[in-house]
Amino acid sequence: MSIIRQNISTRDWTIFSLERAKRPQDFKQKKRKKIDKEYVADCPFCMGNEHLTPKELLRIGEDGWDIRVVPNKFPALEPKDGATLQGGRQMAGPYLCMEGIGQHEVIVETPLHNKSLALMDIEEMENVVFSYKQRYSQLSKNEDYQLIIIFRNHGSKAGTSLEHPHSQLIATPFVPGYVRNRLFEAQRYYDDLGHCVYCEMLKYEIDKDKRIICQNDGLVAFAPYASVVPYNIMIIPKMHQSCFIQADNELLADTADILKTTLKMLYDVLEDPDYNYIIDSAPADKAGEKHYHWHIEILPRLNTRAGFEIGSGMYINTVLPEDCARVLKENKGHS
Amino acid sequence: MSIIRQNISTRDWTIFSLERAKRPQDFKQKKRKKIDKEYVADCPFCMGNEHLTPKELLRIGEDGWDIRVVPNKFPALEPKDGATLQGGRQMAGPYLCMEGIGQHEVIVETPLHNKSLALMDIEEMENVVFSYKQRYSQLSKNEDYQLIIIFRNHGSKAGTSLEHPHSQLIATPFVPGYVRNRLFEAQRYYDDLGHCVYCEMLKYEIDKDKRIICQNDGLVAFAPYASVVPYNIMIIPKMHQSCFIQADNELLADTADILKTTLKMLYDVLEDPDYNYIIDSAPADKAGEKHYHWHIEILPRLNTRAGFEIGSGMYINTVLPEDCARVLKENKGHS
Repeated sequence: MSIIRQNISTRDWTIFSLERAKRPQDFKQKKRKKIDKEYVADCPFCMGNEHLTPKELLRIGEDGWDIRVVPNKFPALEPKDGATLQGGRQMAGPYLCMEGIGQHEVIVETPLHNKSLALMDIEEMENVVFSYKQRYSQLSKNEDYQLIIIFRNHGSKAGTSLEHPHSQLIATPFVPGYVRNRLFEAQRYYDDLGHCVYCEMLKYEIDKDKRIICQNDGLVAFAPYASVVPYNIMIIPKMHQSCFIQADNELLADTADILKTTLKMLYDVLEDPDYNYIIDSAPADKAGEKHYHWHIEILPRLNTRAGFEIGSGMYINTVLPEDCARVLKENKGHS
Repeated sequence: MSIIRQNISTRDWTIFSLERAKRPQDFKQKKRKKIDKEYVADCPFCMGNEHLTPKELLRIGEDGWDIRVVPNKFPALEPKDGATLQGGRQMAGPYLCMEGIGQHEVIVETPLHNKSLALMDIEEMENVVFSYKQRYSQLSKNEDYQLIIIFRNHGSKAGTSLEHPHSQLIATPFVPGYVRNRLFEAQRYYDDLGHCVYCEMLKYEIDKDKRIICQNDGLVAFAPYASVVPYNIMIIPKMHQSCFIQADNELLADTADILKTTLKMLYDVLEDPDYNYIIDSAPADKAGEKHYHWHIEILPRLNTRAGFEIGSGMYINTVLPEDCARVLKENKGHS
């Protein structure tokens, strides 16, 4: 018989159907094309091809560059002068629509076409995380933007179209209902019980030590109790902090360290799986609030979201998070 | 500049980023392996291999069978004698968990391994839809089951593991938060404005006739205003009806007719695309309520849900629904 577990922070449920369980080797990435070139002539993100991107927003590094942030050439949302908070909202019959005001940026993580995030030096990873924070802070000053989402798509199953290593950032002109619900559930938990639901989870996980994957001074990486997919990982600051904008340089360096360690573990155990990660944070105008707690959610793309998941919003997972945590930790010494 | 549209029934937003637009031919299914065998020796759903499935729950047809419904051999949820409505809920530290009580069934749509739903005769499609209703009605009598989701995964990108044509049904022991939110939003719309949000949408769409794809006496198929993916289609009864259990034989026959027509259009225009469809219905104990309206949601799998979609719950779509409706209608005469 399967087990159903609730995500305490969102009240979503995951079904753990273990009879369908696979061994770690069954999840290993197949058919990954090995990229052996450091430079590709028509890649807009390779060193030397800077003229192929829109005008640079941020550069880190001297003697050429280590990180470049540029507007997405095919932006989902775009800035507009003289935009208002109403963002051109209007009715169309019974419907509501608005202009696509916002910002869509690409963080080019390295000049090298074939340098995977999981294999970066710690200095390179720090540059990536510092650039996230710099752009987040900069865009937070624009009152038209209500939410800033930083995300990473790795591999074709995760939705990447360009293979050169890059993250993305989208600033939206409102907080979408999905995010508002998560904030609301965390707020309600706080109202009921008087503490942050993420702090509560963290305390229990550290105490039980069944699902912890690794930790450093600032953060913990663990496999969430109601993980939606195998090897789902949450990386979360130990200290309560609602918004990513509050992270100081020390915490950012620790974030780079734990993100690198965790991605390397996935790389070793699952042989460079496709994955997404997202920085899930309260909006910047809720920085300092007591009920939310920013974190990074890593979601390997090892299976396909099908009709049941789409229709119910629930997930069917085939591996318990405690088993994923164990496999990742056991492997650590062998790599 | 892109356009952002709200789904009036869920209050979710979709970004239409048309600069990334593709022509219909760019979406055409590639690499579909042509299945030429009517019978495959180790396929549990082929005629003659009935012993490979768990005990049959329903059979339609004489002289052999046309439709078989059987329990899923690797069920996500399973029935349990003596289960209670609490479903074995218990706390695990701060978390909530429960036993995986429910039902997971497979509707084998045809004895023939290579008969696609889009190419069925109307009688065959009617059998499929009638079997949905029979199992839905039967399972609704079980008080342990709070929600019944009927869904169809077509093709590997839609999550199919067995290629023999089949639908699935999962009965869950509670209404998940995602579904509860949709019911709540529809209820709130009703409370505010005094009518069903789906009836309102339908009236507007029929009046405007910009996104209607086809219709018959009982139902309308249209491309929703805030379509989450290209060629997203909603099939909805013209008469207000909250729950699928209320559909009578006449409406079921019309449902089969419009589903067949719509799937054939997608098959012709996009060359047999991978897709999911889901029957989205109020739970059976809300049959007769004024605020919800059951419908079928068809979602072709033409692109990949990536980090932004996962983190925000919003979708980035590249084709306007009015263009999808036009392309589907124009093609109709040519097939």
